[in-house]
Parts: sequence; structure tokens; C-alpha cells
Amino acid sequence: MSAETSYADWIAVDWGTSNLRAWAMSECGTVKDKLECDKGMSGLAQHEFEPTLIRVIEPWLGTAKTPIIACGMVGSRQGWAEAPYRSVPTTPLGDLSPVATTDARISMHILPGLKQTDSPNVMRGEETQIAGFLADNPDFDGVLCMPGTHTKWVHISAKEIVSFQTVMTGELFAILSKHSVLRHSAEAEGIDESAFIETVSATLSRPETLAAQLFQIRASHLLEGTENATSRAKLSGLLVGAELAAAKPYWLGQNIALVGHPRLNDLYAKALSAQGLDAAVHTGDDMTLKGLAAAYKELAP
Amino acid sequence: MSAETSYADWIAVDWGTSNLRAWAMSECGTVKDKLECDKGMSGLAQHEFEPTLIRVIEPWLGTAKTPIIACGMVGSRQGWAEAPYRSVPTTPLGDLSPVATTDARISMHILPGLKQTDSPNVMRGEETQIAGFLADNPDFDGVLCMPGTHTKWVHISAKEIVSFQTVMTGELFAILSKHSVLRHSAEAEGIDESAFIETVSATLSRPETLAAQLFQIRASHLLEGTENATSRAKLSGLLVGAELAAAKPYWLGQNIALVGHPRLNDLYAKALSAQGLDAAVHTGDDMTLKGLAAAYKELAP
Repeated sequence: MSAETSYADWIAVDWGTSNLRAWAMSECGTVKDKLECDKGMSGLAQHEFEPTLIRVIEPWLGTAKTPIIACGMVGSRQGWAEAPYRSVPTTPLGDLSPVATTDARISMHILPGLKQTDSPNVMRGEETQIAGFLADNPDFDGVLCMPGTHTKWVHISAKEIVSFQTVMTGELFAILSKHSVLRHSAEAEGIDESAFIETVSATLSRPETLAAQLFQIRASHLLEGTENATSRAKLSGLLVGAELAAAKPYWLGQNIALVGHPRLNDLYAKALSAQGLDAAVHTGDDMTLKGLAAAYKELAP
Repeated sequence: MSAETSYADWIAVDWGTSNLRAWAMSECGTVKDKLECDKGMSGLAQHEFEPTLIRVIEPWLGTAKTPIIACGMVGSRQGWAEAPYRSVPTTPLGDLSPVATTDARISMHILPGLKQTDSPNVMRGEETQIAGFLADNPDFDGVLCMPGTHTKWVHISAKEIVSFQTVMTGELFAILSKHSVLRHSAEAEGIDESAFIETVSATLSRPETLAAQLFQIRASHLLEGTENATSRAKLSGLLVGAELAAAKPYWLGQNIALVGHPRLNDLYAKALSAQGLDAAVHTGDDMTLKGLAAAYKELAP
């Protein structure tokens, strides 16, 4: 029998709603190659997932069967194959769902998301970042804040996810600054940091005023010529302030770590710091890859 | 000199962002004809306003010069001609801004909007409805709630607008139910009334939870199969509850009247009734026409 060949020992895949990212991995966990494209779940019919993936990773395949570990919306009901939610409290990684493929060169596995039934909530993708975070910080006891389109607040204890909460802050900011009357005022490149911090703290102490504060951004722009960078900071501050108000039972008096995009981590770290909280900071992408590697280790015999 | 002719003694126009509505009026205030089209302000360049209006009202014109009274976004900076905001406290109607026209058959007037400088706010169009309401209820002392895309809460005393506040409830509902992840859950024809009332009251008593409650609509739909009519009611209830929390200084212990679209009036009346408030109900369109008629009376010698 001749030796089997392949460029990647295994392939890590983060397949979300809008994007597909893949890494060619060595057995010991180093990244040999990586790529990203816009073939996200939302643009694909069920039968298109396998050919899309093969087209993208084909240069990394050889004659040996290559294991693939994927996380994200690819495992949702509208994805390639549903990997049913596991219930919290639980560890972030459970049994991998094997997915049948027509191409014999790959053995495909999708990580399941998590659900919470008592206060209904779901996550898909963040559980992998949590696994990555816990691989690095196995004794962490406290709360992860994972800022993004749908920010997750996750209570971790004894290597398990105890409970979590989702706040749509990123999505609210995007639709308000693109589709509402506030778009005329909040289009800007940067944001005014002191206006952001001030608005977060004001909203946190008086969350009941939120609904009226939103339109004041527009009115201040019209009547006082408020700068767009300030208006954008106020919009962001109102939404992050409302988020901190809703998530207070999660962060108050807690040990806290941020896992997200560096730009969002920075913003949330400043907002939390103004409430007297120093959060450790971890980049979300790094945690995703570490989580996929942890899942691969559990798969290996 | 031969007698001058015209079908309308004057013409009332409500020219908003999306629509143009016009009424052919008799001297004594009866409606002889009316029309509505989608030639709203947002689709027109400055030089297109006059020809657009003429095309629409031409059948109502004769040889006499016809006065036209218009309200709404047509008087904004992006409209036909800016009718600068008047400052509260003030009566709803001030001097009409005459607008020069090339067509000699019309004499055009636009009603100015109102601004509030201490707590920045603006309105354009609602001041005309308030004038209509006060024409019918000259001794009203209390608060008008004017539900719509941008709901206004208006404190009225001694025939003057004392102060007002804007809450973007209608716009938030529209963009969340069309552009956010909640669209999958909240697409429905009707709404579940008891879920609406329950959510309004819960949000009003705990407004700090708002940001986390929004995503729970999606999670409940995914995990528990919540009906879309219930999800839609919860979304509406969260936003109206947040609005009532922000507007509490306006309505608490006040004499209150609703001025809006009958469907919204009905929803808000139920939400207010659950807080022990009985609001008188007036249809917004009727108040607009009465307000334009009151402005015409002030114009007439």
C-alpha cells in the first residue's frame, strides 16, 4: 500500500451566516494556510454546502481522508445538516455530529450549538469560542462578554456554561445607523469616545429614558449641529448602556473577560471600565480556532 | 370684469416624507374632493415640488387665484421651501410662510414646524393636528399622545404647547420586523392582544430588561414554536412599554387624549388603559384637516 498524502492533517471551518472561513491545520495545531470567502450559510441551498466547501478546500486535500471540524450556522436547520442544540448547563463541546458526504476525501463534523430552556436562548458558534477560551483558561470562574451582532453574556463555572443571555446590540446599531432617520446623523468613520462613555453611564443609570433618547440624537443634530462622530457615539452609548442595564445580573461584582473583535473589545472594555470593571481581553477569531482544535483533539482516537 | 371661477375655494395639503394628500375645500370648510398619491417629499428635488402639485390639483383650479395651505415635511430644509421651526412654548399655528410660485393661479403657504431647545426636539405636521384638536377642544389642559412613526407626547396648557417628546416606536417596530433577525418570528397579519398588554406592563415595570428581551422573541420562536402573532405582539409590547417608561413624566396622573391612526389609537388606548388611564380618541387625519382649516381662517382677511 502506497503512502497516503495530504497537505492538511485536518481542516478547521467557521461557517457563519455571511462568511466561510477555513484553516489548513497540522496535527500539532499550527496553521499551514487559511482563506475566507463570502459563501455564508444564508446564500446557500442545502445541496450546495458540500460542493462549495470542496471547491474552497480542494488544494489542501490529498489521498488520505481529511477530517473537517466546522462550527457556526452551518449546523442550523437552514444549514448543511442540523446539529441539534445541547442544553445548558453543560461543557461547551459535546459529541460532534458526523455529516455524510458524497466526496470520500473528507470526513465532515459539525459542532452543535447550545440552548437554554428556562429563559429561552440559543447560541451557535460562540460555544466554540468558549471552548477555546477554556482551553487556555481551564480554571476560569466568572462571566464572558462576547460582543458582536448578537452579544452573548455567559456565566462559566467549573468548566461548564451555567447560563447565558443574548443582546442584539450590534444588529440594533447596524439597522438604526443604516435604515432609520438616525442615519442622517450617525454616518461617520470614528466615534467620540468621551460622548460614548458618558452616554453609556447615563443610560445605565436611567435605562427607562432610552426610547426618548434615540430621537434626541436626530433633534440635536438638526438644532445644534451636533457632529456626526458625536451622534454616532451617542447611539452606540445608548445601546451599550441599555445592554449593560439588561446584563447587570451577569457582570455586577463578577470576574469578567471579553471575547470578540478587537475593535468591539476595546469599546466594551472602556464601557465596563467606567463601571469599575477590568476585563481580560481575548480575540474572538483566536478563540474560534482554539475551540475547533480542542474539538479535533476530542475526535482523535 | 367677468366673474372668476374655481372649483375649490382653497386647497388643503398634507405633504409628508412618503405621501402627498390634498383636499379641495369650500369656504365653509366642507370637502368637495380629495386625493392621495405617493409623491412624497423624499422622492422630489426642490424644483419638482411646484409642477408635482400643479399636476395633481389642476382639475380643482379655475381663473381665480386659489390659496393653498400645506403642512408637513414639504416645509423642511429638504422640502419645497424651508418654513423655519417656531420655538415652544407657543400656540400651534404661527404666521404662514408664503412661498413664491411661477404658476399665477395659486398662492402657496407652508405651516412651520415646532422646535424645543432645552431638551432638543422637533415636529413637522403634528403642530397642525394639535391646532385641529384645539379647534375642537379649546379648553383642553393635559397631554396629547400622537402615535405614529415618531410618536409625539405633547403637554398642552392654556392653548399652548408647553413641551414635547418624541419616541421612534413606529420606526423601530418597522425596521426590527423587516430588517432584523426578528423578521423570521414577527411576520404576521394580526397580533395577540393579551400578549401585547402583558408585555407592555412587564416592560414598563422593568425597562432595564428591554435589550435582553428582544432576542428572547427569536429564541422562544426557535425553541418553543411561539406563534408569529404572539411574537409580533411581544415586539410591539416591548417597544410600546419602553415608550411608556420614557414618557411617564408626560402621562402619569394626566388628562390624556390620543391623536393618530385608528389602529394605533386602539393599541395605545389598550396599553394606557392597563395603566389605569382612559384616553379620549381622535383620528389624526381629521385633526390635520381641521388644523389646515384653522390656518386658512387665520390667513383670510
